[in-house]
Amino acid sequence: MAVTYESIKVCKQSGARLGRVHTPHGVIDTPVFMPVGTQATVKAMTPEELKEIEAKIILSNTYHLYLRPGHKLIEKAGGLHKFMNWDRAILTDSGGFQVFSLGDLRKITEEGVEFRSHLDGSKHFISPEKAIEIQNSLGSDIMMVFDECVPYPAEHSYVKNSLERTTRWAKRCKDAHRKPDQQALFGIIQGGMYKDLREQSAKEIIELDFPGYAVGGLSVGEPKSLMYEVLDYTTPWMPADKPRYLMGVGTPDCLIEGVIRGIDMFDCVLPTRIARNGTAMTSVGKVVIKNAQYVEDFLPLDPNCQCYTCKNYSRAYLRHLYKAQEILSARLVTYHNLYFLIDVMKQVREAIKKDRLLDFRKEFFQKYGYEQ
Amino acid sequence: MAVTYESIKVCKQSGARLGRVHTPHGVIDTPVFMPVGTQATVKAMTPEELKEIEAKIILSNTYHLYLRPGHKLIEKAGGLHKFMNWDRAILTDSGGFQVFSLGDLRKITEEGVEFRSHLDGSKHFISPEKAIEIQNSLGSDIMMVFDECVPYPAEHSYVKNSLERTTRWAKRCKDAHRKPDQQALFGIIQGGMYKDLREQSAKEIIELDFPGYAVGGLSVGEPKSLMYEVLDYTTPWMPADKPRYLMGVGTPDCLIEGVIRGIDMFDCVLPTRIARNGTAMTSVGKVVIKNAQYVEDFLPLDPNCQCYTCKNYSRAYLRHLYKAQEILSARLVTYHNLYFLIDVMKQVREAIKKDRLLDFRKEFFQKYGYEQ
Repeated sequence: MAVTYESIKVCKQSGARLGRVHTPHGVIDTPVFMPVGTQATVKAMTPEELKEIEAKIILSNTYHLYLRPGHKLIEKAGGLHKFMNWDRAILTDSGGFQVFSLGDLRKITEEGVEFRSHLDGSKHFISPEKAIEIQNSLGSDIMMVFDECVPYPAEHSYVKNSLERTTRWAKRCKDAHRKPDQQALFGIIQGGMYKDLREQSAKEIIELDFPGYAVGGLSVGEPKSLMYEVLDYTTPWMPADKPRYLMGVGTPDCLIEGVIRGIDMFDCVLPTRIARNGTAMTSVGKVVIKNAQYVEDFLPLDPNCQCYTCKNYSRAYLRHLYKAQEILSARLVTYHNLYFLIDVMKQVREAIKKDRLLDFRKEFFQKYGYEQ
Repeated sequence: MAVTYESIKVCKQSGARLGRVHTPHGVIDTPVFMPVGTQATVKAMTPEELKEIEAKIILSNTYHLYLRPGHKLIEKAGGLHKFMNWDRAILTDSGGFQVFSLGDLRKITEEGVEFRSHLDGSKHFISPEKAIEIQNSLGSDIMMVFDECVPYPAEHSYVKNSLERTTRWAKRCKDAHRKPDQQALFGIIQGGMYKDLREQSAKEIIELDFPGYAVGGLSVGEPKSLMYEVLDYTTPWMPADKPRYLMGVGTPDCLIEGVIRGIDMFDCVLPTRIARNGTAMTSVGKVVIKNAQYVEDFLPLDPNCQCYTCKNYSRAYLRHLYKAQEILSARLVTYHNLYFLIDVMKQVREAIKKDRLLDFRKEFFQKYGYEQ
């Protein structure tokens, strides 16, 4: 198998999992946060910088790469790793989420989804088989099945129909996969916010026997408490010997709450996106660097942080760069935000080791200013 | 004196000068190209990357820093070096050129120039004394006198009046300079394209005895041959024991021609600006990376280049990044272009050492595709 999960220990206080995911491009300590490199680059970062901050795996988007520059071009270049100069692990999503959120005039049938490109309006059709073909060309270590991510809120009957089609599509994805020895294909559990449907989806998808499983359809606008509730009952149905991935989640509180509920892997554009808008995640909460209060603030972005940005630049300088619309602003804040989240996950793993993740959550939330 | 020139040798074939400029922030091998960091950052680059490519001195713009974030703020931060995390040499221009090219509604009097900010339309007044006050606050190693850069073409009488005022302003700058032991103030020779006026300006400015001299008012739209002609007669009037700086020049051919005419220092936004527009300077001429011919070109940007960009990325990838408007595109091409120009100057110094700069020019022009 291309990807395997090695369990190291379970936190006695919280039930959180400490482990390792073995991939063809290296070993990943879990729980892990995966930076997002939508268009074959983590925005504003080089691969070397990602290594400096100890990123072991990044996510890239099948939908975007299919449209531009095209998966066949990337295959000709020797695959996505070589194309983008990243020799550690890559996870690609299936394109499903973007087809539904970015594509225009989409039309869903049993066969697949017809949509228009958000770039030029051109017409495209992605089926489960096509999603796998694209990901096989990209050569990612972890591929995802083509699914429908249902909106929130949605009717029980709509969600049920959707998840049953997602199961049929998952089966077709598995059958279409040409390189199971080199690339792992993960299943995705859907079912919206309905316990019976999550259970049905979990059973059906796990029955297909994938090397890893994701929880999809969360972080789509529902209250955090509802997301935690769905995780509370869904993760216990997931096999303990396979990695568990919560898609699209990236705020520090959701990462920690997800880990406590047995999740191993997370991804989100949040830290990189807000960085480009001048917002930093710090040990004492959000810092919005454009605010006037930082004009003459010569402290680091986060005085408790050891990253390159915080060791070398002041808030006053970062504010100046942001106001002057300098590229270095995006670079330095992105670097910090990714360092910060990856460091939070390192602290989370440390806390699991010491069987004190619930204590860590309390301390972290207090410093960050989250309500408890 | 804050800055001194050490002569190493003169090229027997061309008369070009090999030397060292000693500054409070390090020694600079000359001839040298100085990357431009307009707003306290060389666009898209970190200071560490500038060191990787062996930049020893950068230029920053007084006009821009005065307007934003303000020189008093930078002084409070401990000066420009500390503010921007750059511990090598910095040259600041006087703001004169930008006042004339960017400021709106400018009004020139003997006292100075009144203008409106290009950022917010606010009214400002910069006198020779003010230009020096700002540069003293910034703490640059090399400061420039406040001058008027006359447009091309311009009448003899206009240029004569202007250069004589520039001389009076140069005197006032010298008198206003508070830190001559820590910061060197360079004079600027004007005089447009008129030999008699260049001679008059050179005599008057050199009479004031500055630790270095610039040739201003070139590269303002005149044909290259005219610029070379002005240099041909101007540089011989300049003292051999002081650095000579040709302002605003940055194409490879002009650098080499300038060096042959006895210039030591150059600056220009060209390599960084065209990089952000996806154009690279390479050993075989310009590469416009967005062009369709590079879609499936897996060669490096410049196959003869040893820079980070060329060692790790293909033209196809760089084209993708440019088309996808990724920040990494600006980063990688900027890095390459600066590396390239700095490397050209290294080769130029090597050629001077070996008394073969005219041969080098011929070889370089042939490869680059310049007419000879």
